[in-house]
Amino acid sequence: MGENGDTEIIEHHVDEEMEKKRILRSHGSSFMESVTPSERDGHSSTQSSHRLLAYSDALISIIATVMILPVAHTKVQDNEELKESLQVLLTTKIAVYLMTFLIVTVAWAAHIRLFQVIERIDDCLALLNLACMMLITFLPYTFSLMATFPENILGILLFCACVMVLGFIQAVIVVYGFSRPFLLNDQIQVSENQVFYKHHILKVIMRVPIMCFFASIFSFIFFQMSYVILAIVIFLPYISQSLKWCRSKAIGQVEETPDSMMFYTYHPNEPLSKERVEAFSDGVFAIVATLLILDICEDNVPDPVMVQKQYGGSLVAALQNYGPEYLAYFGSFATVALLWFVHHSLFLHVTRTTRFMGLLNTFSLAFVGGLPLAYQLTHEFPRNSRNELEAIQISCVIIFFAGVFQLAIWVAALFSERETLHPYVRYGGREHAFMLAKLALYPCVALGTFFLTCILSKFSASIFHLMEITVPFAFLLLRLLVRGGLTLLRLIFCPDGPETRSALEEEEEEEARMPFNTMIT
Amino acid sequence: MGENGDTEIIEHHVDEEMEKKRILRSHGSSFMESVTPSERDGHSSTQSSHRLLAYSDALISIIATVMILPVAHTKVQDNEELKESLQVLLTTKIAVYLMTFLIVTVAWAAHIRLFQVIERIDDCLALLNLACMMLITFLPYTFSLMATFPENILGILLFCACVMVLGFIQAVIVVYGFSRPFLLNDQIQVSENQVFYKHHILKVIMRVPIMCFFASIFSFIFFQMSYVILAIVIFLPYISQSLKWCRSKAIGQVEETPDSMMFYTYHPNEPLSKERVEAFSDGVFAIVATLLILDICEDNVPDPVMVQKQYGGSLVAALQNYGPEYLAYFGSFATVALLWFVHHSLFLHVTRTTRFMGLLNTFSLAFVGGLPLAYQLTHEFPRNSRNELEAIQISCVIIFFAGVFQLAIWVAALFSERETLHPYVRYGGREHAFMLAKLALYPCVALGTFFLTCILSKFSASIFHLMEITVPFAFLLLRLLVRGGLTLLRLIFCPDGPETRSALEEEEEEEARMPFNTMIT
Repeated sequence: MGENGDTEIIEHHVDEEMEKKRILRSHGSSFMESVTPSERDGHSSTQSSHRLLAYSDALISIIATVMILPVAHTKVQDNEELKESLQVLLTTKIAVYLMTFLIVTVAWAAHIRLFQVIERIDDCLALLNLACMMLITFLPYTFSLMATFPENILGILLFCACVMVLGFIQAVIVVYGFSRPFLLNDQIQVSENQVFYKHHILKVIMRVPIMCFFASIFSFIFFQMSYVILAIVIFLPYISQSLKWCRSKAIGQVEETPDSMMFYTYHPNEPLSKERVEAFSDGVFAIVATLLILDICEDNVPDPVMVQKQYGGSLVAALQNYGPEYLAYFGSFATVALLWFVHHSLFLHVTRTTRFMGLLNTFSLAFVGGLPLAYQLTHEFPRNSRNELEAIQISCVIIFFAGVFQLAIWVAALFSERETLHPYVRYGGREHAFMLAKLALYPCVALGTFFLTCILSKFSASIFHLMEITVPFAFLLLRLLVRGGLTLLRLIFCPDGPETRSALEEEEEEEARMPFNTMIT
Repeated sequence: MGENGDTEIIEHHVDEEMEKKRILRSHGSSFMESVTPSERDGHSSTQSSHRLLAYSDALISIIATVMILPVAHTKVQDNEELKESLQVLLTTKIAVYLMTFLIVTVAWAAHIRLFQVIERIDDCLALLNLACMMLITFLPYTFSLMATFPENILGILLFCACVMVLGFIQAVIVVYGFSRPFLLNDQIQVSENQVFYKHHILKVIMRVPIMCFFASIFSFIFFQMSYVILAIVIFLPYISQSLKWCRSKAIGQVEETPDSMMFYTYHPNEPLSKERVEAFSDGVFAIVATLLILDICEDNVPDPVMVQKQYGGSLVAALQNYGPEYLAYFGSFATVALLWFVHHSLFLHVTRTTRFMGLLNTFSLAFVGGLPLAYQLTHEFPRNSRNELEAIQISCVIIFFAGVFQLAIWVAALFSERETLHPYVRYGGREHAFMLAKLALYPCVALGTFFLTCILSKFSASIFHLMEITVPFAFLLLRLLVRGGLTLLRLIFCPDGPETRSALEEEEEEEARMPFNTMIT
């Protein structure tokens, strides 16, 4: 424990600074009204980090979903078999998309962790964070270089350089934050083990750039090794967590943390800022919903000369060519919007998100990101071709998994419902049944459509489009159906006085809601 | 006043319903603990609209900036003169971009207004809002059809149809909201003039679709008239506001509103949700910052076969071709990020945004949206050509205006500083001086670069790149410079006891900050 002496000195120093700060502060607050505003700007320059984080989430979510574009813009030839072209796609571009999504979300999780420790910012931290963002947005490009030229070390070197600089900036942010304790999380601010926290966090943060440093050195000697190291970097938290679990089972509970350590533990139950999970998901859903309209706006405005020549000046005739594109756009927008709606309903009931729920959410979002591609494929092939059928089935599979992972979040939340859910949605409540129905709707419909298209392959396109149109109305009617079902059940099983009265009252309320719903449908 | 009788009846009806609600509610709250959770879901189904609005802001900001893509992807030929090609660009695509931005922001402002009245949502409203979003995201496409085929009525008809359906859905949302008063703004909820509010809001909302209906009818008879009507629709609030102002000046103050009417007044001082202005701006900044990386990821990964053939397998040599693209990306990212930083600092000091400030913000964002295009142009021409010089000067002009409109927001806020600004940034404070310096930095630098490139046209590219590199550091040092200058001024002008002591203390604080800043630079 040669570190201890050092630690104590720093601790003393920090205590001294805290003391000074405290004096300054009490000074400031008592003088608050008497001094001119310019006197107390040491405090006004400290800002809530809320908007900075929202902006970071927006940037990261755009970057995470952007690698679907090269996949979507790969032109699939009609005469080619979809299977073959899909194999080409699957091997490189889709893998690149999924891996980039994973890496960017890992960077995002690190960013969340960092700003759960540092809760307030000043101008310096804001600028440092923007530098971080610039590097994160550059990651997908280095990654696609790695994927396109797997045997060239330039991609690895660029990637490692980015990650190392990122790690360095994060370390600077941590050091800067701990040198100004009023920027920190309240829990750490009052803790006596500030120095321990600082060392622990720096150790966790520096792990990644150091691994990358070794990876970049290995790339000169034996580049396959670099990929192995990079893979270890990504799965490191999971590996270290399971190792720790094994050790604790083998030797017994070894508690190293001085007080309940809530930061940088990599435990599946470590809290993950719910607000940021929502902001990131919103960003991904928003980008994915508009991906197809970007293409339509750019490519599907016909050329006036061409319209004059080919269609005799009839714009309607020219636009009819693009019919399938419009249909794909509205279909994918509706599906993404409704999946967002389910996500939104789900997170209304969640009070606290854990890392494990965040992971499931990432998987769900990765599938959502593939939706526009799947919808675009459905209209690129001639009617009733084998390719069209397969494209539709792939769309169903993607919708199914996107929905199933949302359902998994719900199940994971139910396992520790006392900490993660509002009381009124726990097992047995009506809201619980309603939420389950909402979450189950898309997976069920997708599965049903999948099997229907297997049996009635001739009508696959019609079945798929019918599904697109009916699902939004199913969501509108869902509440009515679940309510009706539950009221019926209650009337049958407990037909005693006050219960029935309240049920009747509720039915009245339902009736007040009815006319509107029927008007819509 | 034939409406009055009708109004009274509705008012009575609403009162009755309110009474019923109140009874139900007090019933509910007293039973809260005794009943099962499923009993009180009438309340749990009501949700905060926060996340719905954040998602809408994200969607709308993407759509507003997306029309810059067709402009950015117009290939400018090297042998062509930039002026000529710019004229082609200016006449159609840039005009389309600016008009779309304007129209989408008008739709966004209407959306804000609507959800300032309706503050809580339920599932039905969430789904209706998503339908609205789908239509709004389709607007740019109809608009670009109108711009490409100005003499074909199909574009007008599609546009009008979208706007009419949008207006209808908004009206449904208002009617639905007023039929469930617990969804409304608290101020309206307790107001006795609910029915007046409802009629007033419906009147304002229905004005636009009705005008569009006439526009679509006129398109069959005399289509030029339709464009005039559509222009009136957009500028209607400004026209009606100035008419009202003239009338009030002519006849004297005519107060029609029963209590202080805060909704749908179109007064420049009407409050605009600060949160949503921030969310929308964040969305625009995030998209604009990443527009170039999207292009880089898609187009600038070289083909392995090409690298093998042309560069003998040397990836570095192949990537050197893309150098200017990377430079453009980092340059535009840094500029957008710093403009965001200024915007962020500005809105930290603002307590309340008005419609006029929102308008200025929109203008600033419209220029920000043009930045990636300008940066892309700077590297598309041969070194030291006349085209390159002009592209650089255009970039400077765009940066200048984006910054100047941010400055204008600040000036507008200062004019009513008691309502819109935190006390510590009002005239005369140190934070005030610092904020002014932050806001003035970009316009000044852009102006300086512009004139320098006019004089030293030979070194324009070097000057421009030097500017890109130095500005971030200027921001880091700004606080130090302003602080130093102000401390110096104070020491000179009021060198009395306690003042000097506090100044000394602050200097100490500054010194504590100094090492880090010097380390960075």
